[in-house]
Amino acid sequence: MKAVYKRIKETVFQIIEPSKGSMASKIFDLAIIALIIANTVMVIAETFNLPKNVLSAINVFEVISVAVFTVEYLLRVWTADLLYPEANAVKARFKYIFSFMALIDLLAILPFYLPLIFPIDLRILRIMRVVRLFRIFKINRYTKALRLIALVFKNKAAQLVSSVFVVGLLLIIASVLMYNIETEAQPDAFSNAFETMWWAVSTLTTVGYGDVYPITAAGKVLSTIIAFLGIGLVAVPTGIITAGFTEIVGKEEQAKKSEEKLSSQQNQTDCKSYCPYCGHKLD
Amino acid sequence: MKAVYKRIKETVFQIIEPSKGSMASKIFDLAIIALIIANTVMVIAETFNLPKNVLSAINVFEVISVAVFTVEYLLRVWTADLLYPEANAVKARFKYIFSFMALIDLLAILPFYLPLIFPIDLRILRIMRVVRLFRIFKINRYTKALRLIALVFKNKAAQLVSSVFVVGLLLIIASVLMYNIETEAQPDAFSNAFETMWWAVSTLTTVGYGDVYPITAAGKVLSTIIAFLGIGLVAVPTGIITAGFTEIVGKEEQAKKSEEKLSSQQNQTDCKSYCPYCGHKLD
Amino acid sequence: MKAVYKRIKETVFQIIEPSKGSMASKIFDLAIIALIIANTVMVIAETFNLPKNVLSAINVFEVISVAVFTVEYLLRVWTADLLYPEANAVKARFKYIFSFMALIDLLAILPFYLPLIFPIDLRILRIMRVVRLFRIFKINRYTKALRLIALVFKNKAAQLVSSVFVVGLLLIIASVLMYNIETEAQPDAFSNAFETMWWAVSTLTTVGYGDVYPITAAGKVLSTIIAFLGIGLVAVPTGIITAGFTEIVGKEEQAKKSEEKLSSQQNQTDCKSYCPYCGHKLD
Amino acid sequence: MKAVYKRIKETVFQIIEPSKGSMASKIFDLAIIALIIANTVMVIAETFNLPKNVLSAINVFEVISVAVFTVEYLLRVWTADLLYPEANAVKARFKYIFSFMALIDLLAILPFYLPLIFPIDLRILRIMRVVRLFRIFKINRYTKALRLIALVFKNKAAQLVSSVFVVGLLLIIASVLMYNIETEAQPDAFSNAFETMWWAVSTLTTVGYGDVYPITAAGKVLSTIIAFLGIGLVAVPTGIITAGFTEIVGKEEQAKKSEEKLSSQQNQTDCKSYCPYCGHKLD
Repeated sequence: MKAVYKRIKETVFQIIEPSKGSMASKIFDLAIIALIIANTVMVIAETFNLPKNVLSAINVFEVISVAVFTVEYLLRVWTADLLYPEANAVKARFKYIFSFMALIDLLAILPFYLPLIFPIDLRILRIMRVVRLFRIFKINRYTKALRLIALVFKNKAAQLVSSVFVVGLLLIIASVLMYNIETEAQPDAFSNAFETMWWAVSTLTTVGYGDVYPITAAGKVLSTIIAFLGIGLVAVPTGIITAGFTEIVGKEEQAKKSEEKLSSQQNQTDCKSYCPYCGHKLD
Repeated sequence: MKAVYKRIKETVFQIIEPSKGSMASKIFDLAIIALIIANTVMVIAETFNLPKNVLSAINVFEVISVAVFTVEYLLRVWTADLLYPEANAVKARFKYIFSFMALIDLLAILPFYLPLIFPIDLRILRIMRVVRLFRIFKINRYTKALRLIALVFKNKAAQLVSSVFVVGLLLIIASVLMYNIETEAQPDAFSNAFETMWWAVSTLTTVGYGDVYPITAAGKVLSTIIAFLGIGLVAVPTGIITAGFTEIVGKEEQAKKSEEKLSSQQNQTDCKSYCPYCGHKLD
Repeated sequence: MKAVYKRIKETVFQIIEPSKGSMASKIFDLAIIALIIANTVMVIAETFNLPKNVLSAINVFEVISVAVFTVEYLLRVWTADLLYPEANAVKARFKYIFSFMALIDLLAILPFYLPLIFPIDLRILRIMRVVRLFRIFKINRYTKALRLIALVFKNKAAQLVSSVFVVGLLLIIASVLMYNIETEAQPDAFSNAFETMWWAVSTLTTVGYGDVYPITAAGKVLSTIIAFLGIGLVAVPTGIITAGFTEIVGKEEQAKKSEEKLSSQQNQTDCKSYCPYCGHKLD
Repeated sequence: MKAVYKRIKETVFQIIEPSKGSMASKIFDLAIIALIIANTVMVIAETFNLPKNVLSAINVFEVISVAVFTVEYLLRVWTADLLYPEANAVKARFKYIFSFMALIDLLAILPFYLPLIFPIDLRILRIMRVVRLFRIFKINRYTKALRLIALVFKNKAAQLVSSVFVVGLLLIIASVLMYNIETEAQPDAFSNAFETMWWAVSTLTTVGYGDVYPITAAGKVLSTIIAFLGIGLVAVPTGIITAGFTEIVGKEEQAKKSEEKLSSQQNQTDCKSYCPYCGHKLD
């Protein structure tokens, strides 16, 4: 009995774990990816003015999707002890439940169950439906190519956070200065430092929608300085991220080189009888 | 007879193949480049309100151009077995016809022949005339400088596609969120998630035309986040491409170095009996 | 007596110096950081239309803040000889007072005291209140992460200043050229070379608010050139800063490597009598 | 007599050549720089609505400036044989006259003399006055910091030209496609492929003034693609220039390293008596 249970569990694990070789596993992966894409299309479709019968069809599809994702989530929790064989059954499940991908999986189904448990305001519910969009991130499990980009951001997280902090300081200083300069000439657009921040963002990121811009000479000078700092602002994260990409490439090449060196040194040991450096006969 | 055929073929091949030394080959290259430029100018000229006689002159020029490009294409297919001497006559031609540059050559003349074979709607025909613009890419055969840029993009294709995928995710999430935030305040500009994507593109690329922008506080906060992510978005492909350019330069230098090393090691080949440093005979 | 004075001084120094291990020091650091953040919020809050009693509360808070920052400043000057133990008491204080962080500290409290000493125009006073924003930079003392970014800018200062100089030249040339081209078609927006500079800034930084743009053909051609130079303009500081980040990373790695080399060379110090590779005694 | 002539010539050369140590040379440099700056200010000032007496003062100043720059130019040509001592007197002068800085010097004075020789239309004359702005570039002789940037652009010229060529292709293709898509919906803004290019520039450089933008769905899709290609467009020159800066830094470091190696090898030769590799006694 126990052996059958164990074999079923192992088979399930082989199927749901991504990038396992078997045909069943590949079909399962593609089905989940298709469902994620269909869900994304559905969330976009809902923003259009749809006829009633389409809306009810979407609702049915939503229930089916949540059911599938719930079963998938439970199966993954159930087989977590096979993923972390070194931990015991309870620990392995806890470890899995709090892993990044498992939290994404939970977030993808939770907004559906919450209103069934607690009475929730319809407005909040509407925002919660947007959370279903996070189902897109479930696709991350299947794309190897995204990992390098994620790795660069992870390696450089501290520096990137610092540059965001610098940007925050710049935004605050620019907004307060600009408010004091422009509020008299344009009391509506620059009504307080918080409103002025909208101009600061538009300028510092070089988006420049054109709905808010200074008209006084002093304001234009400040705007000039902020716009050029915006260029520097782009340069800092670009520099950090580029260094990150270059480093990874550099490390890979170094790893290759040291391997080659090793193998060439091993070849030299075959030069047996004589030391390649002092020419002495080796014992 | 066969020898004459072969010599003619070889002469033609020497002429049409780019960057061959003979004067005839250089004249042929320049003539084709001139014709490509003239065709590009013609496509641009057609968009102006031209008098009837100029339009008919353009039509005559179009017929001549297509004739020349067709002959060029056929000659290249005919001499393909000289380009790939290792393959047999049929294989070499197939290999050539499906090469990138040959497909461009075909695409440059096909829109002219298709309506002669199939009856085609005039509207589709008009769009097809735009395809003639691809004749510009024929010029690629003659520019060595473009190859480095193309090489960098090819080397980094997987990472660049990943960053495009990340951008796609960002666009979808930003659009759906913004639609839910702004649609009540501006029901026209943000009428559905697809329309909202126009704002998302404008902000994420920092173009900021200024035709669509949020007016609610929540919308401005989201716009701020998207604009700053736009900066990060620029940083990722920049980082990837820069790493690509740095790598190529690095490889070239390494190639040089290893060559030098090799030659210095060859000098040491007689190091068995003499110390490579002090020249003393080793025991 | 003197010993007690010295011990008190040392205790104070231990507390106010950032990143010292003791609990008292950490509490002091956090208190100062909290006060800096509260001051920043206050300066932003003042730009809103506030009721009178809130404004008077802000004034009280301002007096308390300045009092705390003044005491902090005096304590730091007092203990400066412990910071620079190699210099004598007077020199150490002078050295500290003219250090970057001490000047920031002074600037954060000076605008409060100046009107008490000199009679100052109310307008200038209002601008001076903005200077209180520089209190934000006091936070720099507590963030290690900002130092790397600051280091990169310091290392590359000469090159960055050069690129700013190039931008200045470009702005002047673009403005004078554009003024001569567009002033007839749009005499209001392009009334003189200085006004035209606003367009040049908007284009060169790719902000593009859309309040000023050329309408003549020649003006559009010039605008095209300037916009593309804007792209190059972004590339130069980005290149400089990226090289800076890459260098620092490179140096760190090199430092590691040379350390390793050193230690391996130290192992070889007894290589005189034994071959470092085969261990054979050398003649 | 000849000796006096030679000594005067040498003294003049010492004075006008930049970055020579003597006091007279430094004063001359500063005077020329001051005159260049004054000329730049003057060209900007002329765009303002100035009273008649100021205009005549400017005219007098213009004559003086041209006189000084002319004398400077002639002196430089006269002493050219001291700058290139290896060439004979005539060759040295020809070599100097066609050097980059000498051409700039000539361009700075030529627009003043031309109308005295040929009768020139007043309109052309007005544009020629703008050429006086090139006097700014004379300052290049005195700034060492600009040379690194110039060197990077020179090293990477071929690749940068290629990327400009790619941009040109993109602009043409985007313009013709967009014209065919949008001309029916907005016949004024997209009246022909050349006018549409203004939109293409605005989008590809992410300036986005907001005077021209697509309103059809197909046009928005094309605009999206062009805007994202605009990001890639920024990435290519940034990558090229960054690689350029990194290379130069790398070469400098390598030069340092090889120097160190050399000196350390020289130190090893002092290990005299024994070869450090084979341990053999050196002769």
